[in-house]
Amino acid sequence: MKLLYEGKAKKIYETDNPNEVICEFKDSLTAFNGEKADKEEGKGALNCAITTIIFEALQKEGIPTHLIKQIDETKQLVKKVEIIPIEVVVRNIAAGSLSRRLGLKEGKKLPFTIVEFYYKNDDLNDPLINDDHAMILNLVEKREELDKLREYGLKINDFLVKFFDKIGLILVDFKVEFGKDKDGNIILADEITPDSCRLWDKKTGKKMDKDLFRFDLGDIKEAYTEILNRLKG
Amino acid sequence: MKLLYEGKAKKIYETDNPNEVICEFKDSLTAFNGEKADKEEGKGALNCAITTIIFEALQKEGIPTHLIKQIDETKQLVKKVEIIPIEVVVRNIAAGSLSRRLGLKEGKKLPFTIVEFYYKNDDLNDPLINDDHAMILNLVEKREELDKLREYGLKINDFLVKFFDKIGLILVDFKVEFGKDKDGNIILADEITPDSCRLWDKKTGKKMDKDLFRFDLGDIKEAYTEILNRLKG
Ligand SMILES: Nc1ncnc2c1ncn2[C@@H]1O[C@H](COP(=O)(O)OP(=O)(O)OP(=O)(O)O)[C@@H](O)[C@H]1O
Ligand SMILES: Nc1ncnc2c1ncn2[C@@H]1O[C@H](COP(=O)(O)OP(=O)(O)OP(=O)(O)O)[C@@H](O)[C@H]1O
Ligand SMILES: [Mg+2]
Ligand SMILES: [Mg+2]
Repeated sequence: MKLLYEGKAKKIYETDNPNEVICEFKDSLTAFNGEKADKEEGKGALNCAITTIIFEALQKEGIPTHLIKQIDETKQLVKKVEIIPIEVVVRNIAAGSLSRRLGLKEGKKLPFTIVEFYYKNDDLNDPLINDDHAMILNLVEKREELDKLREYGLKINDFLVKFFDKIGLILVDFKVEFGKDKDGNIILADEITPDSCRLWDKKTGKKMDKDLFRFDLGDIKEAYTEILNRLKG
Repeated sequence: MKLLYEGKAKKIYETDNPNEVICEFKDSLTAFNGEKADKEEGKGALNCAITTIIFEALQKEGIPTHLIKQIDETKQLVKKVEIIPIEVVVRNIAAGSLSRRLGLKEGKKLPFTIVEFYYKNDDLNDPLINDDHAMILNLVEKREELDKLREYGLKINDFLVKFFDKIGLILVDFKVEFGKDKDGNIILADEITPDSCRLWDKKTGKKMDKDLFRFDLGDIKEAYTEILNRLKG
C-alpha cells in the first residue's frame, strides 16, 4: 500500500480504486498542535472502532460520510475526498479555547449551540476565521458552502448530543472536517473520536476525552475503552 | 465638567444634556493594548480636527454619526451613545494582525473588502469573534444588528477609499465603533483618525498612521499634520 499522507493521528494509503483510500488510526497522541506528543498502544484501534460506530449512525441519519467500511482493527476504507481546509468546531458548553478567548467559565452551558471555523494550517496554529477570511483564502468556492458546513455541523451535533446522552455522556464540543467527493458533494470525512470531541460523564462530570492527555488528568485508554463499551451497548 | 470615562486616547465628560457628552482628544499615544505608551503634544488637536472633517463628510453621505460639533481645538460635542462592544474592522489590503494571523503578505490587495469583528475587551486582548460569539456574549440583541454593522462598515469604506484617494492616500484598513443613541438607532461613534486607520501615501508608499509609532518608523506629528493639511485643502 502506498502511503499518501501521514498525519499526527492517522495514515492515508492509496488503493486500487482512485476514489477510495484507506485510513489507518495510529497509536500516537498529540496536543497543542503537536507540542505535546506521546503514544498509547491500542488507542488507534479504539478510535477506529469508535469513529466507525459514529459514522455509521450518522450515515443512517442522512448525513453523508466518507466511510465505506472498517477493514481491520485500525483501518477503514473511505471515499477519497479533497479536504476543505476548515476545522468546523461545534460547541454546546464553554471549554478549552472558547473559555480562554472569551473569558467564559469552563462548563458554562451556552445559550445556544455555536459553530466556529478554524483555518486548517499548522504553521499558523489553526487560527479562528470568519466567513470573509474563508473566502479570501479560497478555502471554499462559494459562501453557500460555509452555510452548508454550519448546517451539517449543527445537524451532526443534534444527533450526537442525544446519541451520547443515551450512554451517559455529555457532548461538550467537537471538531469535524469535511471534504468534496469525486462528484463535488460535501461529505463528512476524517474522524469523530474522543480525540476530536469533549465528552464528560453525565453522573461524575469526569472528562473522558483527549483533555485527559492534554492536562495529564488520567488514563486515556481506560476512558476511550469505556466510551467504546458504552457505544457497543 | 464631570469626567465620565478616561480611555487611552480620549476623555468623555458629562454635559447638562443627558443625551450629549463631550469627547476630548488626548495627546497620549498607545499601542499593543497599552503595552507601548507615549505622548505627543498636539496629537489630540490633530486627531480631533481630522475626525471632525471625516465625520462631517460621512454624515453628508447619509451615515448617521454621534458628532454634533467641534467645540474647541481638542473637543467635540457628541451624542451620548451606549457603545456596542465590538470593534468593526474593515480591510482592503492585508496588514497588521490579518497578515500575521493568516500568513498574508503585508500590502497584498485583498480580492474583496472584508469585515472583522473584535470583542472590545482589554482583559481578553480584544479577540477576533464570529457572529455566534457576538450573540452568546450579548454584544447585540439581534443578528440583524451585526449585518447592520457590516453594512455600515462597508459603506463607510466605500466613501473613505475615494475620499482619501483624492488626497493621495491609500486606505488600507480601519477600525470603527458604533453605539445606540437614545432612540435605539445604531450610529457611528468614537473616532476615525490615523490612530484607527492605516493610511499609506499613494506616491511613496510611506505609512502615515499609528504604525509609525507602533514600530518606531517615523514622526507621528509630521504625518498627522500632513493628513490634516491634505484634508483641509
Ligand atoms: N476521506 C479522506 N480523503 C482524503 N483525506 C482525508 C480523508 N479523511 C481525512 N483526511 C485527511 O487525512 C489526514 C489525517 O491525518 P491526521 O488526522 O493524522 O492529520 P493531522 O495530524 O491532524 O494533521 P492535519 O489534519 O492538519 O493534516 C488529515 O489531513 C485529514 O484531513
Ligand atoms: N458618543 C459616545 N458616547 C459614549 N461613549 C463613547 C462615545 N464615543 C466613544 N465612546 C467611548 O469612549 C471611550 C473613548 O476613550 P478611548 O478611545 O480613549 O478608550 P480606549 O482607551 O480606546 O479604551 P476602550 O475603547 O477600550 O474603552 C471609548 O470607550 C469609546 O468606546
Ligand atoms: Mg487530524
Ligand atoms: Mg478607543
